[in-house]
Amino acid sequence: MFTPIDGGVTAPAGFAAAGVAAGIKKAQKKDVALIVSQEPETVGAAVFTTNRMAAAPITISKRHVAGAAPQAIVVNSGNANACTGPEGLSDAVAMARIAGEALRIDPHQVIVASTGVIGTPLPMDAIELGIRQAAANLSDESHLAAEAIMTTDTFPKQFAVEFNLGTDMVHIGGIAKGSGMIRPDMATMLAFLTTDAAVERAYLQAALARVVDGSFNMITVDGESSTNDMVALLASGWAQNEPPTARHPLAPVFEDGLRLVCTELAKMIARDGEGATKFVEVRVTGALNEAEAKKAALAVANSPLVKTALFAEDPNWGRIASAVGASGAMLEPEKLSIAIGDVTVAGAGAAADYDEADAAAHLEENEVAIGVDLGVGSAEATVWTCDLSYDYVKINAEYRT
Amino acid sequence: MFTPIDGGVTAPAGFAAAGVAAGIKKAQKKDVALIVSQEPETVGAAVFTTNRMAAAPITISKRHVAGAAPQAIVVNSGNANACTGPEGLSDAVAMARIAGEALRIDPHQVIVASTGVIGTPLPMDAIELGIRQAAANLSDESHLAAEAIMTTDTFPKQFAVEFNLGTDMVHIGGIAKGSGMIRPDMATMLAFLTTDAAVERAYLQAALARVVDGSFNMITVDGESSTNDMVALLASGWAQNEPPTARHPLAPVFEDGLRLVCTELAKMIARDGEGATKFVEVRVTGALNEAEAKKAALAVANSPLVKTALFAEDPNWGRIASAVGASGAMLEPEKLSIAIGDVTVAGAGAAADYDEADAAAHLEENEVAIGVDLGVGSAEATVWTCDLSYDYVKINAEYRT
Repeated sequence: MFTPIDGGVTAPAGFAAAGVAAGIKKAQKKDVALIVSQEPETVGAAVFTTNRMAAAPITISKRHVAGAAPQAIVVNSGNANACTGPEGLSDAVAMARIAGEALRIDPHQVIVASTGVIGTPLPMDAIELGIRQAAANLSDESHLAAEAIMTTDTFPKQFAVEFNLGTDMVHIGGIAKGSGMIRPDMATMLAFLTTDAAVERAYLQAALARVVDGSFNMITVDGESSTNDMVALLASGWAQNEPPTARHPLAPVFEDGLRLVCTELAKMIARDGEGATKFVEVRVTGALNEAEAKKAALAVANSPLVKTALFAEDPNWGRIASAVGASGAMLEPEKLSIAIGDVTVAGAGAAADYDEADAAAHLEENEVAIGVDLGVGSAEATVWTCDLSYDYVKINAEYRT
Repeated sequence: MFTPIDGGVTAPAGFAAAGVAAGIKKAQKKDVALIVSQEPETVGAAVFTTNRMAAAPITISKRHVAGAAPQAIVVNSGNANACTGPEGLSDAVAMARIAGEALRIDPHQVIVASTGVIGTPLPMDAIELGIRQAAANLSDESHLAAEAIMTTDTFPKQFAVEFNLGTDMVHIGGIAKGSGMIRPDMATMLAFLTTDAAVERAYLQAALARVVDGSFNMITVDGESSTNDMVALLASGWAQNEPPTARHPLAPVFEDGLRLVCTELAKMIARDGEGATKFVEVRVTGALNEAEAKKAALAVANSPLVKTALFAEDPNWGRIASAVGASGAMLEPEKLSIAIGDVTVAGAGAAADYDEADAAAHLEENEVAIGVDLGVGSAEATVWTCDLSYDYVKINAEYRT
């Protein structure tokens, strides 16, 4: 029903994108991206970081999304425009103004995002040149924009699907960046999504918030995001379907499509975790409720001791037990069970009768699964993460210097 | 007023200790410790991990401390006796029984502690032999016990002071272990304290809880401790002072002495953080209240991005700003200031006018200080941590295999 298709933000009808090298990053890497809807009546939605030191572009974009119908997104990488004071705010306003001029739209219709080093003023000459160059090079090529938003990412991230919304064929696509994974809340996560479905505005915002909570927030701790985190969605309506509202029978279908795109992008971010050698899925079942399941799963996924054991391909399940025990989630110690892949390594709160070689063999794979049952209920949650390797330290010790 | 003296748990009058190699750990390393009070009327107090997967010795020791006057502490390293089911509980009971027999005291007067790998049954033959051997080798040598409780620690940790409690000279001493520092809550922290001061029992328990909160809990996240964390204190009363109660005028003096010992031991644990190349003090001021100050300070101290920057001696203060912003602590972005050593690197929420070489020079030291002012109040908190190096990954990837 949902068919993955090539491309990202330009897969849906009505969108163009560009990514150029403006000299903000070294070595002629792309660092300015534009995503533009050709539809003047575009409907937009966005969710923003809850970090109290939110960057200037977050402040400006919140205002723009609240006050006008967003029609374009301008992004730079290499500099976060965070902790930059009043000058940072006027720089973010200027980014919107320059993009608005170049695209001949109201600057208030431009969403602004930045990612990179904190505390350094934006090089506005380079930014201005980059935005104008991007505006002159808009195309149906999403890949270049996906490259231009990367920081320590090792590959560009994009995904798109097509599916039937009633009798109408619609598309949802997106690009994302993010690579700091030991505590993803500390490394900027950006995702920009587009759809040609027509969607009622209030519903779009509510649906995006729900979907982000079950996808991007499953690799990031809610309420502990970076200074620059943002997910924005533009809907062109060019599919000319009947716009879903919250109670529309097709709303769940649209939301499933959106969830699929966001989950795939979220998993790509986990897979590209800084220094990651393994993609790790942590599934917690048997919890009192979903919030408790998520808390326990994130505790395992964030534990450096678990992550280093995974890097070593060591089925050291005691560290998993300790992490869920410390998470604060309710559990029954005598009922706790833990699986590594298909191998139950602990049951009834103690070591199970298993062959350690089987568990170790699973951990030699590139994709590993950890299952934990808390033994107190029927709620569950799944989070995605990666292991912790020498390269995480290397990347983050050398990032700025 | 408080004079540091040599030794640890045997510095106060009335105590003996031992540390022996029983074959639980490899390479004939010491792995069983005994701490014994010669006073039948010894007064005891203890605080325990809040981890829901609390190990068997925690369960048994809680019972013993609640039901009888503890007179001895038996500890093994190399095996945590955690996630070991009903067998683990009877093994912990057996440890107390064997120690009680060897020391000719009621087994209920024995506090039991274990630290090491989770999920593996205790080698009870070796444990029994070790306890009997330790009981036969009690002396005033605290150092051997300090060695016997180590796991990945690189040095034994002990500290003692003497001071006047009114007209009486009293002593407080202690030993500690703990070395996993990236999330200290995941690595066992044990501390055993002794004093020859006479102290009223209810007051001793309350004082210990308060002091632990301001010392060991400033290097560990409250409520997120390992399966085996424990701090226990025995008071022999051999100084024959008038026992302080909560309202006794000398109670604050006793508590200051206890705080000094606990803080010094806590700092040693931070200094010995796994793979640490630097000892880091994070002081947060200008907070709404102490809890908020502690939350912000721990967010900085636990941030892998901050810790890797410190390892790289890179004054990347943006990561510090992001960590406090994400901590949930109330702050005024336009008033936030950050100092590295004596160098104010950020003020009014943006880069200050400073020489980066000065900040970098401070980070080349072995002991570094980070100061953050949140700009909303007058409360403060100080936590201690270390940097995150390649060796943290190495130690934890290779710990069990």
